[in-house]
Amino acid sequence: MATDPTLDPALRCWVPSAHAEGTDFPIQNLPLGCFVADGAAHVGVAIGDQVLDLRAARDGGHLDGLPAATAEALGQGPLNALFACGRAALTALRGRVSVLLRADTPAGVRGQGDAARLLRPMREVTMQLPCAVGDYTDFYASIDHATNVGSMFRPDQPLLPNYRHVPIGYHGRSSSLIPTGTPVRRPHGQLAARPEGPPTFGASARMDYELEVGAFIAGGNPLGTPIPLREAEGHIAGLVLVNDWSARDIQSWEYQPLGPFLAKNFATTVSPWVVTLDALAPFRAPARARAADEPAPLPYLQDRGNAAAGAVGITLEVWLRTASMRARGVGPERLSHGGFTTMYWTLAQLLAHHASNGCNLRPGDLLASGTVSGPERTSRGCLLELAWRGAEPVTLASTGETRSFLADGDEVILRGWCEAPGAVRIGFGECRGMLVAADPGEEA
Amino acid sequence: MATDPTLDPALRCWVPSAHAEGTDFPIQNLPLGCFVADGAAHVGVAIGDQVLDLRAARDGGHLDGLPAATAEALGQGPLNALFACGRAALTALRGRVSVLLRADTPAGVRGQGDAARLLRPMREVTMQLPCAVGDYTDFYASIDHATNVGSMFRPDQPLLPNYRHVPIGYHGRSSSLIPTGTPVRRPHGQLAARPEGPPTFGASARMDYELEVGAFIAGGNPLGTPIPLREAEGHIAGLVLVNDWSARDIQSWEYQPLGPFLAKNFATTVSPWVVTLDALAPFRAPARARAADEPAPLPYLQDRGNAAAGAVGITLEVWLRTASMRARGVGPERLSHGGFTTMYWTLAQLLAHHASNGCNLRPGDLLASGTVSGPERTSRGCLLELAWRGAEPVTLASTGETRSFLADGDEVILRGWCEAPGAVRIGFGECRGMLVAADPGEEA
Repeated sequence: MATDPTLDPALRCWVPSAHAEGTDFPIQNLPLGCFVADGAAHVGVAIGDQVLDLRAARDGGHLDGLPAATAEALGQGPLNALFACGRAALTALRGRVSVLLRADTPAGVRGQGDAARLLRPMREVTMQLPCAVGDYTDFYASIDHATNVGSMFRPDQPLLPNYRHVPIGYHGRSSSLIPTGTPVRRPHGQLAARPEGPPTFGASARMDYELEVGAFIAGGNPLGTPIPLREAEGHIAGLVLVNDWSARDIQSWEYQPLGPFLAKNFATTVSPWVVTLDALAPFRAPARARAADEPAPLPYLQDRGNAAAGAVGITLEVWLRTASMRARGVGPERLSHGGFTTMYWTLAQLLAHHASNGCNLRPGDLLASGTVSGPERTSRGCLLELAWRGAEPVTLASTGETRSFLADGDEVILRGWCEAPGAVRIGFGECRGMLVAADPGEEA
Repeated sequence: MATDPTLDPALRCWVPSAHAEGTDFPIQNLPLGCFVADGAAHVGVAIGDQVLDLRAARDGGHLDGLPAATAEALGQGPLNALFACGRAALTALRGRVSVLLRADTPAGVRGQGDAARLLRPMREVTMQLPCAVGDYTDFYASIDHATNVGSMFRPDQPLLPNYRHVPIGYHGRSSSLIPTGTPVRRPHGQLAARPEGPPTFGASARMDYELEVGAFIAGGNPLGTPIPLREAEGHIAGLVLVNDWSARDIQSWEYQPLGPFLAKNFATTVSPWVVTLDALAPFRAPARARAADEPAPLPYLQDRGNAAAGAVGITLEVWLRTASMRARGVGPERLSHGGFTTMYWTLAQLLAHHASNGCNLRPGDLLASGTVSGPERTSRGCLLELAWRGAEPVTLASTGETRSFLADGDEVILRGWCEAPGAVRIGFGECRGMLVAADPGEEA
C-alpha cells in the first residue's frame, strides 16, 4: 500500500473540490461509473464534485499508450468491456488517471488546461448502472443478520446447521437492477396472514430495505474452471452499495422451498460509483475471526495468505427521509450504522465459493453480500431487524413518526465510507431510492 | 386454428425431407433458432433436415415487405432482437416463411430456385443458444414432482401449504446456459452425509438431470407494469426443452434457507429450436383441473377465457446412453415418458405470476417449467424420483447396468413432440448433453 503512488495522502489534485472537507471522491479514490451525456453512455471517474470523462480524456490524447483493449473499452458506455480487461488493466488505468488529475505533473498541467472538455459537474450528468449485469447473485454473509432473521422465523433453530460451513447465496434478478434515484413502486403479491394460508392478493404491507455491499466482477472464468481463493480478489473490479428492496409479507409466504423470488425481484438499487479494490487497499482489515466453537472453513475457503486483510473496513449507514420530513424541510435521519468487517464470509470467499463448481462469472456480473448487520441493535441493516418484525417500531426523532416497515414516500439512502490512520477518507456516494405507492389499478 | 393456413395438414413443401416420416420439422412447425456459419450467427428456421437461413432469405429478396424492425432483426444472431418485435411480428414472419417454403406458391418456386443459397444441411451447422438470455427463471410447476421430492425430504409434509396457491419459482443462472451437445463437467461442492454436517468438499456423487420445458419471452413489460393473465401468452415466443442438471448432494446441503444455488448453476442445457406458440396451436389442451379439495387460483391467476386450452400437449421423453452402450454400439434407452399437460400451473399462469409484482421480463428471457413429472412411475422427470433417491435403482435393459444417479460418460437426451387428430406431428429436436468426469485437479 505504501508503495502505491495513487494512494499517497500528500497528492494534490487540480480539481479544487477533490480537496473539499468530507468529499467522497478525493484523488485517492477515483471510482469508475457510467454516465449519460449527449445521448450516449460514457465511462467516467468521480473526482470531487466533478466527473472526469474518460472517453474525452482518451480522445484528447491524455491517456495515450494504454493497451488497445483498455483504450477501446473507454469508448463504450457500461463498464463491462473495461472490466473484461481484467483487474491489472484497471490498476494501470488508475495510475494514468491519477497522474492526469495531479496538480504537479506535466500530464496534470495539460489536463487542467483541457478541463472544460474533460470535466462535467456531477450534478449535471445522469448516472446509469455501472454495468449491464449478466447475472446478479445475492449472498447471506452476515451471521448477525442470518441469526436475527432466523430467530424470528425459526425460534427453535435461528441459524441452520449449514450456515457456518457454506456461504449461502442465491441468484437475484438482473432486469430489475436500477440506478440510484429511480423510484420503487410498492409491489403487489400474494400475502398470507397465517403460515398455512390462504393468501390474498394485494399491495405489500411490509416493505423493507436491505443494506448491502456489492462487488462487480473483472475478468472472470470459463465455464467449468473454478477460481481459487488466492486469485479471487483478482476478479473483483470494485465495490458499490446495494439496496435489496424486500417485501417481507410476500417473502414469508413464497420462499419455501426454493428461496425468495417475487419478494425481491421488483427492484434492487445500485450506487453509481465502483470503488476499486486498489482504492480500498488502505482500509483492509482482518477477516472475522472464528470462535473456538466455530468450524474452520473447508480448505477451498481457507485464506492462508490474506486472512489478516481479508475484510474491507467500510462504515455503512442507512438514512431515511419521509414525506413528512420533506414537507417540513427536515433532512434525512440516520436509522443505523455499522461496519462491513463483521461479515462471516469475506468477498473473496464468496467469489471462490461461487466458482467452486465451475460456474462461470462474467465481467460486470454483480455479487452482493446480503444484508450487512452487526451484533449491535444500532447496526441492524434492515427494518425487519431494526423494528424486530414490528415488535419494536422505530421512532423518528424529527417528526415523531414511527416505522415498522416503510411507508409510501419514504426515501432510503445508503452511505458508505472508509477512514484509516495515514490514509485519506474515501466514500461511495449514495445509493438512494424512494418508495412510491402501489398502482391502484392492479387490484382488479 | 383451422383458419391458420400455416397449419394446414395438406401443405406441400419443396424441401423433400420436410415430408420424411417422423421428422420433427415439417412445414407446419417452422421453429426458430440461432446457428453459426461462416463465423457469424444467423437466424434460422428448421425444415426437415435443413436449416433455412433467414438472413440469406431476406438479403435474397424473399422476405421483402416485412416491417423494418423484423427485417433488421433477421440480420442478427441471437433471437433477442427478433423476439423484441413481439409475438405478432413472429406470427407475420411465420406466414411469410410458410409461403416461401411451399411448393405451390410463386414465392416458393422462387425460393426453391434459390435453395443453394437459402438452405444449409442441419448436420453442417452449429446451433447456439437461441437467445442471449438476460434472466433465466426456473419454476416448480409439476405437483407430482413437488410431491415426490417433498416426500423424500419432508415425509411429514410432502407438499408445502403454499404450493397450490403460489407458483413457486426462483432465479437460475444465465451464464451457464449451454446449447445442446455441450459436455457437462461433474462439479465439485460441499457434500454432507448427515443433515447437520459437517461437510466435505469433493466431486458430486449424486448427479441428476431434470426434464423441463422452457418458454422464451417475446415483447416483455416495463419495470413496474404487470402482465395480466389474458395477455400472458402474447409474451411467449415459443418453447424449448431444458435439462436443468442438478447435483443432489450439493443441493440438499446448501438449499436452506435461500434455495438451490451451486447445485444447479454449473450447467443448464437448452435445445436449439424455439417451437412457436403458433405451431403449437393444434396441440393445446385443457389446463389441469383442480380437484374438489384444491383451492381455486387467486383472481390474477384465474383463466376465464382460455382455460379449455391453457396447457400444451407435448409428449416428453428422457433417453440415456451410457459409455458402455456406446462401446457396444447400442443406442440410447428410454428412461421415462410423460406429458406436459399434467403441470399444476400453465405457462400463462407462470408468466403472469412472474410479472405480477412489476418484475420486468425482457425479450429472450427464459422461463422454465421445473421438472415435468406425471403421476405414473414411468413419467418421473428426473433420476432422483425415478430411482427414488437410490432406493429403487433403474436397470438398463441393454447392458444390465443400474443407475441411482448419473455416471461419467452418461449422455442424457430429452425429446418432445406433439400429435393430434387432424394435425401434422411436430417435434422439438433434441436436448442432449454428456456428463464428463470431474477435474481431478480441483481436489487439492
